[in-house]
Formats: sequence, structure tokens, C-alpha cells
Amino acid sequence: MSLITVGTMAFDAIETPFGKVDKIVGGSATYVAYAASQFIKPVQQISIIGYDFPEAEITHLQSLGVQTEGVEIVKDKKSFFWSGKYHLDMNSRDTLITDLNVLEDFDPKVPDSYQGTEFLMLGNLMPKIQLSVIDQLKTNPKLIVVDTMNFWMDIALDDLKLVLKKADVLLVNDAEARQLSGEVSLVKAARKIMEMGPAYLIIKKGEHGALLFHQNQVFFAPALPLEEVFDPTGAGDTFAGGFIGYLAKTKDISFSNMKTAIIVGSAMASFCVEKFGPERLKEITKEQIDERISQFVQLVNFDIDLV
Amino acid sequence: MSLITVGTMAFDAIETPFGKVDKIVGGSATYVAYAASQFIKPVQQISIIGYDFPEAEITHLQSLGVQTEGVEIVKDKKSFFWSGKYHLDMNSRDTLITDLNVLEDFDPKVPDSYQGTEFLMLGNLMPKIQLSVIDQLKTNPKLIVVDTMNFWMDIALDDLKLVLKKADVLLVNDAEARQLSGEVSLVKAARKIMEMGPAYLIIKKGEHGALLFHQNQVFFAPALPLEEVFDPTGAGDTFAGGFIGYLAKTKDISFSNMKTAIIVGSAMASFCVEKFGPERLKEITKEQIDERISQFVQLVNFDIDLV
Repeated sequence: MSLITVGTMAFDAIETPFGKVDKIVGGSATYVAYAASQFIKPVQQISIIGYDFPEAEITHLQSLGVQTEGVEIVKDKKSFFWSGKYHLDMNSRDTLITDLNVLEDFDPKVPDSYQGTEFLMLGNLMPKIQLSVIDQLKTNPKLIVVDTMNFWMDIALDDLKLVLKKADVLLVNDAEARQLSGEVSLVKAARKIMEMGPAYLIIKKGEHGALLFHQNQVFFAPALPLEEVFDPTGAGDTFAGGFIGYLAKTKDISFSNMKTAIIVGSAMASFCVEKFGPERLKEITKEQIDERISQFVQLVNFDIDLV
Repeated sequence: MSLITVGTMAFDAIETPFGKVDKIVGGSATYVAYAASQFIKPVQQISIIGYDFPEAEITHLQSLGVQTEGVEIVKDKKSFFWSGKYHLDMNSRDTLITDLNVLEDFDPKVPDSYQGTEFLMLGNLMPKIQLSVIDQLKTNPKLIVVDTMNFWMDIALDDLKLVLKKADVLLVNDAEARQLSGEVSLVKAARKIMEMGPAYLIIKKGEHGALLFHQNQVFFAPALPLEEVFDPTGAGDTFAGGFIGYLAKTKDISFSNMKTAIIVGSAMASFCVEKFGPERLKEITKEQIDERISQFVQLVNFDIDLV
């Protein structure tokens, strides 16, 4: 079993109320790879980087079972760069700089060695790029998970709708679910979005947890209340990586197993925010992950005899 | 076993994106009484009303096991009146009118017949009034649950701190928990607030659910994702009424049973928002409550073998 993940590998500059980094490795595919490789190997990476992306980072990812044949290196351009500043509540942020650099030329080619892969994670990218990857696959994946954002709903809605027709699971936040559906009620929004294609919809609500919708069922996963949220950057991608990594490991895409996968993703995301960038993800152990998942079990566990 | 509830009985004018009522019965003690009386009788009401409060409402409450000896009727004044308008997201609202009327004179007297009661629900009121009720009780209640709001933190913090010293459970929302503690992290906020007195802290997050803190433990109860949120007015008081009503019924104030009580409170609140004012609470049956609680069980239930 293997997993293709498509997304950015980049540099971020991040300022939070607790500190500041001028340049740290980031990008959606980086976070997905660190999270997913805890559960499944190989993780087959598709991305684009410039001459400045650290070789040590690539080597480190490879040592975790991440294949990088699909990572294009552009010799005369810089890597994608994003800079943002978080507000005091850590729930909102301002983007200060977006330098596309290599991302302007991103036209991913799926390597032959990646063909036959059953799980596909499409990070938040221009819908045309997401479509191009799906179209290059010679066999249909067992599960396609798609992340997107309001920006693409604004400027590329028709393409996004084509992606949604092929998606099995869509990941959006609550504001995006409302925008995409035109419904305020998340229950109604979910119904409309599932009619657009994906059989499963995950609505991420940051520190308020996540909802999984499927047909008439709904599951709620809380976020773990944390002592310190140091840097939320990448938490959503880490969640996605843990989610699809766990599904690929267990080879079970039932609603029941997706509920578990969401808890796993939430646990991984709870580590991500504890340090700047993907630093915390690099050091966690299987035992720490199990311990964190146990905390989620405790967090929502209650007994009831009906009243 | 019985329960004293202290709070307002009032008229509300409410505008939501889904409709408008010019005058409907409301008030914290009204909602608490409707919710708690599903679980425990008698509910011993302490409040103040004017000449205009409908006698039929009082009679209806009495038929549900609500005692009204502690409800003072002022013959020459109007009942408390609140008017508000909800924003499209239903999470925020503007207060348009607050006519205190009888509330200006509220100096509650605990009737002799209420003495010996083991559960006390102090609705959101001036802390001095909350203190006065506690001081009038000849035997210490088994459990004192206190609701309050940012307004009292602004203008009567010293009195509020005296109340907190005597409270067992404090109910606040997330912004209020942050204001009261001066901490952004809810985990840190909870620790500081529990040092002020209450052994248990419930942080209400509206459509995002509620957190229960006790010592180093934390429990998360989701809100049920609803098709329609018609009118959120009174949802917090209904939650409180279900919570303390269930505790009084089961006579068990352990952390474990409080978790269950929070689910019960959340279920009751999920009914409250389905119609204007307390209308929906007046018509629900035991079977519907059990059915709704089952939905909460489904909502958070997942299986996991550690990964």
C-alpha cells in the first residue's frame, strides 16, 4: 500500500505571539509527508522546489520512507515562500508575503514508479493542477482526498467543481464550506457539497475540532485543549497527513474507520502546533502518538443510561 | 431531592435571520425551570416579575413541578425586557434594548419552604444578589452552580470573586474565561479560575460545544450539528438547567457523572434553539430527549486500536 501526496514544499516566515522565525521549511506536502510517514511507507511526494531548498531536509524525508522522484528541482529559481503573522487568539492570521517563485511553473508529472498507488492526497493547489494529477493516474485510486481553500472558490470555481466530481473526501474549513454551498447551516452545507461529488466531507474548525459528514451520518472530533499553541502553521496539512496515512495503513475506507482516522489526524495536528514549523513532527515517537490518541479517547468518553 | 434556581423571568423581543418575535416569555430562570423540570421535581424558582407577566405561564410551570413561592410579583412595574438581534452566523448578537423594570428592585428572599435544598443554580445576575441567596440558605447546598458574564467582571469583580469562593461549578463562555483569568490558553485559564474557588469549570462555546475542567482532567462535549438554528436565545440557560437537573436527579456530583450531565444539558440546549423562546422546550417528551442523547453518543463514538 502506498500514498501519493501532491502539494507545496516551501519556506515560511512565521510570527506568533510567542515568537518568530524568519525562514523555516514548510509547505503542505512537507507536513503531509511528516505526518503520513508515521503510518505508511512509501509516501510518494509530488512537488516543486528551488535551488535553495535544503538537501538535508530531502534526505531526512527519504530516511522516513518518503520518495522524492516526483519532486522537481528548478535550478535557477527560489522555492515558494510564505510569510504570515498570527493574531493573539491564534485562530486568525494575516498573510504578509506570498512569493510564488517555482510554484508559477508547477506542472506536476506523476513518475511511472508512482503508478498503481491506491491513496491520493491532493494538497491545496490550483484545481487545474489537482485535475492534471488525477488524469495522469493509469488506475483509479481507492481514495482521493482533496484539500482546497476559498481563494480557488473565488477564482477557479468551475475547475474546482470538476475536481470535486472525482474526489472521495473533501477537506475545508467552516467558512469555506459555507462559501462553497451558500448555506449557513453546516448540516445543509454538507449535504449540498456531497451532492457535488465527494461522498465524505470533513469540515475543519481549528481549535474547535472537526466534523465528518457521510450520507446522513455525522461524527465530531474535538481538538485537544492545549496548554500552549505555539504555531498553528501546517496543522491542517498535518491533520490531512495523519488522516490519509492511517487509512492507507489500515486499508479500510469505511465511515467507521474514517472516524478513527480523524482522531489520528487530530492527534498529529496537536503535536504540530507545539513548535514552529514541522519541528515537533520530526521528533515524536509511536509511543507519544499512542499516548496522545488515548487522551482523545478520555476527552470525549462518557457513560450514559438514558434518562 | 430538589433544586433552587435563581434568575430572571422576563419578556424578550428577538430578531434572527429566520424570523422575529416582538414579545415572548424568556429569562434565565424560565429556561432553567423548563429544562430542569424534565429531570427533577420540585424546581424551586426565585425571581421577580411585573404585573404584565402572564399568569398562564406561571400556571404552566407549576404544572411541571415548578414552585413559585419565591417569585415576587411587583404590582406596579413591568417585567424585565430584553431585545436583541442575531447576526447571520447566529453566534453573535446585538442587544437593542434592556429595560430593567422590576429587576432594579430584585432583592430575593428564600422562602422557608425552600430551605434544605441540596442543589442551587444561580443564574447570571449581579454577584451581590447571588451572594445574598447563598447567605440566606441555612444548610450548605451539596452543589452550587454559578452562571455569570463579562459585564460583572467589568463592574463587580470583587463581589464576583466572593461568589466564586462559594461556587462548586462555574459556567462561562470562552471569552469570559479568558477575561476572568487573563490567559489566552483555555487550559491555563481553567487552572487559574479553579484556583479562585470552583472545583469544576464549564466553558461554553456555543455551536462549538462545551469543555468541563476538574483538577487535571478535561472533558469535551460537542454541540449537535443542526439543520436549523432558529433562535439561540436561552440555549445557555437551558444547558444549565439540563445539567443541574440531571445531577439533582442522579444525586451524583462526581466528575464522571458531570460529563454525562453536560451531554444532557447539550441535548436540552439543542432543542431550545429549534424554535423561538422556550416554545420547543414546552413540547418535548422524555422519548425525544432520550433519542437526542443517543445522537450525541453516535456523534462522538469511535473505535480505536492504538496505532
